[in-house]
Amino acid sequence: MLAEIRSNPLLWLLAFVPAVLAAAKLKPEAHTLLFVLAVLAIVPLAALLSHATESVAAKTGDAAGGLLNATLGNLTELVIALTALRAGEYTLVKASIAGAIVTNTLFMLGASFLLGGLKHHVQEFNRAGARLQAGLLFLATVALLIPSAVGTAESAAQSAFLHKLSVGLAMLLIGGYALGLLFSLKTHRELFASAEHAEEGEAPWPLGLALATLAGVTVLVALVSEIFVESVQKAAEAFGMTPAFVGFIVVALVGAAAEMAAAFSAARKDRLDLSVGIALGSASQIALFVAPVLVLLSYLIGPAPMDLQLWPGAVAMMFIATLTAALVTNGGRSAWFVGALTLMVYLIFALTLYLLPPQG
Amino acid sequence: MLAEIRSNPLLWLLAFVPAVLAAAKLKPEAHTLLFVLAVLAIVPLAALLSHATESVAAKTGDAAGGLLNATLGNLTELVIALTALRAGEYTLVKASIAGAIVTNTLFMLGASFLLGGLKHHVQEFNRAGARLQAGLLFLATVALLIPSAVGTAESAAQSAFLHKLSVGLAMLLIGGYALGLLFSLKTHRELFASAEHAEEGEAPWPLGLALATLAGVTVLVALVSEIFVESVQKAAEAFGMTPAFVGFIVVALVGAAAEMAAAFSAARKDRLDLSVGIALGSASQIALFVAPVLVLLSYLIGPAPMDLQLWPGAVAMMFIATLTAALVTNGGRSAWFVGALTLMVYLIFALTLYLLPPQG
Amino acid sequence: MLAEIRSNPLLWLLAFVPAVLAAAKLKPEAHTLLFVLAVLAIVPLAALLSHATESVAAKTGDAAGGLLNATLGNLTELVIALTALRAGEYTLVKASIAGAIVTNTLFMLGASFLLGGLKHHVQEFNRAGARLQAGLLFLATVALLIPSAVGTAESAAQSAFLHKLSVGLAMLLIGGYALGLLFSLKTHRELFASAEHAEEGEAPWPLGLALATLAGVTVLVALVSEIFVESVQKAAEAFGMTPAFVGFIVVALVGAAAEMAAAFSAARKDRLDLSVGIALGSASQIALFVAPVLVLLSYLIGPAPMDLQLWPGAVAMMFIATLTAALVTNGGRSAWFVGALTLMVYLIFALTLYLLPPQG
Repeated sequence: MLAEIRSNPLLWLLAFVPAVLAAAKLKPEAHTLLFVLAVLAIVPLAALLSHATESVAAKTGDAAGGLLNATLGNLTELVIALTALRAGEYTLVKASIAGAIVTNTLFMLGASFLLGGLKHHVQEFNRAGARLQAGLLFLATVALLIPSAVGTAESAAQSAFLHKLSVGLAMLLIGGYALGLLFSLKTHRELFASAEHAEEGEAPWPLGLALATLAGVTVLVALVSEIFVESVQKAAEAFGMTPAFVGFIVVALVGAAAEMAAAFSAARKDRLDLSVGIALGSASQIALFVAPVLVLLSYLIGPAPMDLQLWPGAVAMMFIATLTAALVTNGGRSAWFVGALTLMVYLIFALTLYLLPPQG
Repeated sequence: MLAEIRSNPLLWLLAFVPAVLAAAKLKPEAHTLLFVLAVLAIVPLAALLSHATESVAAKTGDAAGGLLNATLGNLTELVIALTALRAGEYTLVKASIAGAIVTNTLFMLGASFLLGGLKHHVQEFNRAGARLQAGLLFLATVALLIPSAVGTAESAAQSAFLHKLSVGLAMLLIGGYALGLLFSLKTHRELFASAEHAEEGEAPWPLGLALATLAGVTVLVALVSEIFVESVQKAAEAFGMTPAFVGFIVVALVGAAAEMAAAFSAARKDRLDLSVGIALGSASQIALFVAPVLVLLSYLIGPAPMDLQLWPGAVAMMFIATLTAALVTNGGRSAWFVGALTLMVYLIFALTLYLLPPQG
Repeated sequence: MLAEIRSNPLLWLLAFVPAVLAAAKLKPEAHTLLFVLAVLAIVPLAALLSHATESVAAKTGDAAGGLLNATLGNLTELVIALTALRAGEYTLVKASIAGAIVTNTLFMLGASFLLGGLKHHVQEFNRAGARLQAGLLFLATVALLIPSAVGTAESAAQSAFLHKLSVGLAMLLIGGYALGLLFSLKTHRELFASAEHAEEGEAPWPLGLALATLAGVTVLVALVSEIFVESVQKAAEAFGMTPAFVGFIVVALVGAAAEMAAAFSAARKDRLDLSVGIALGSASQIALFVAPVLVLLSYLIGPAPMDLQLWPGAVAMMFIATLTAALVTNGGRSAWFVGALTLMVYLIFALTLYLLPPQG
């Protein structure tokens, strides 16, 4: 593990983990400092979690490994969101769900296309994987769009309707996610061939070390997330950022930093299959697994049940992001301009959220 | 015809036709019973109508036969909607139009893909036909979306505007439908080759029998529809279903039962061209022929003119259904998961409508 | 130039230029007459401008020529909009921007497909160019959709937000346009090969004549535009047209008359690459260059800054137009029915705007 730390510069940031925990004890009111330290500490922990999950997956064989990867691949996002859920910060939870989907779909995908395209004239990738993920994302977008489209009036009947609907939709989405895994890992796995054997470059850890890392790092992420969630709103004010911008952009970028490093490096190596798989797979995992699990868990651990009704602007952004992903991956080819176009759509959203007056 | 009845188990249900007519005379207040009997009676009548239309079409040659099929293919839906129109039940008429489009596009298409995909690993179909129908559906969706997008204020000027606009759009849609027939039956018929010779398996009836069946069964459907339309709202309350769910889902499934049987059977036989043609052709026929004809006829037989402004949620569902159909048929290939995904979009809609509070 | 006038029947209309200028001096109150004369005078001036721009472009070499063409190709629309901007007619400016995008995307593209398809059974075209322009149009639509999606409440904070957002989006769009030129003229020009050498049929003018024409005709267009903008609203009332219809349909058709003549003639000659390039290129140039330039210039020459928030119906129409363009150009093949379908979407919009009550 020490060799690992030496080879991966991200892991030097692990020094910030004790720093943020100490600072939170000593200076609990220094929100801006705590926020910055927490961000710097979460990034290497996410990278460790990601590597540990893959190592366990590599040991357990293809189908079980794929399942494990698909379930724990976004553990960081899940732990952050669970912490916010327990604190009753439902607006932050919802913004971070929508933001993670939009960020993975537009920023991670667009930057992969751009970085790959700056090195390679034209790149090709396997469309089957992209289509599956785009289809799942489309399903999730429809599920998140419908409560906002039909439910507007504020009333008790309306609120009860939204909660029942949200639970039903959550179960449908998890079912859709399970069917997608069945399809891609079992019945039609030959269509997704090139996305397998992805991480062969890195040597997997022994199973014991991997499992221990998985357990230990999850606890650390949970501890740091608590500091992050507590400090994020106050720190955002200090930086002049709107809450919408923080939830949508900052939390999403922090949570996905480790996956982005992997996706960008694959794109530079002309392995765009892998980049597209990480970006869209991560987005659909959050939409079809993390989000519904949070809705269901809100009945157990939250102060009140959470529904799936999002701010209409967030729904519009998710819908546009999904449509963009479907359009740009449809042809199975890419050049730098496709990435630039996708990134510009993301920039439009980021700019809008950055300027949005708080009461909006 | 007796041989026909023996070979097709659906036709045993014809026994419910006299049953429902008798029950309506004897127990006009037993709404739930009448509703169930009416549903069971309409299904075999729709199957007979469908077979009679095809038999006449087979005798009259390709172009005229195609035209006949395209005009009378959704006679059941037309008769039910006309009965509701005469009774002034405009909300039911509009819900059943939108519901028929959504049900044919998502449920019939999705279940065909799923049933075909469970038997065959990957299925291919002719994209030309699917694209034509998807294009026509897109046109109809735009036509139904625009009145809802621009017309919101309640005023006399607004209402006059909506009625003039609806008549203009109705004539445009019928014109578009006619051009689509001209294109697929005449100028570019070679592109749609494999969808022809579809029903070759079943022996067509003699022309006299077919015409007599067409006339007689249409009268029976009209009589049973009257009982159906009268009883459906009361029965729905008894079953705990919302009016939106009844119009959108129940009426649409009843009206399309015969076509579904044909589409599913073709999918199992790996003739997905035919399934896609029936599902999308039926949807575009309702959108571009049945709906505008109802608008125009409302000036003659309805208590007041009907416009084309739908409930915004219905427009959103139609738009999503059309988009889904365009995306899933775009590649010309299918596997079971494509069907499952399409069905899940339908399930999201059905769940939403089932839970929707009545005042919504 | 005299030979030019003899060979191109459009240029006979140049006689209307002195006519309209004289009429404006003599009868400043005859709005309907002035409107008709101004329309008849703008059409040949636009054709001259277009030819002069191409002649200069032909002399200056490929990259610079492409840049010039891309910047001055919609000079007529820009001058008309600048005149309306100086007069503070922001509703007319915005309607004419949205209308030019919709008209070029649906009417010019659809009529090209229809006219080409009536002569040729099936036509093929280079998809790369169509995809680039469709991608740029999609970006612009997102940029114009977002201010309308997030900004609804009327307040000072909201208004300041919209102005800051509009300036940011305007700079993003110009950046996107510049990247698109870099991509198509420089880094990946081989993908767009067939759209080059387009105007080879016509002999370019000498550089001196071309530059003089460019300068002189721009002044004339500016003078006539002033009369056009002053008379258009009053004349529209006299013809019974709504202001929305005038801005969206009439101004757009007048401004693009010269390009339409070129696009339709190319379609008849089975050079659909060129038609698609003119139609979509023109639309994306207005969306990504003319519209943002107008926003930025409104700070210098307008009575007040202009934002990018459009009437929701206009946004819906732009979104549908972009989606239609993406769908119909996606396959790279066309037949007459594709054109008819596209034109019918345009007809739906025109009909809606024609019937729309003025207060809508």
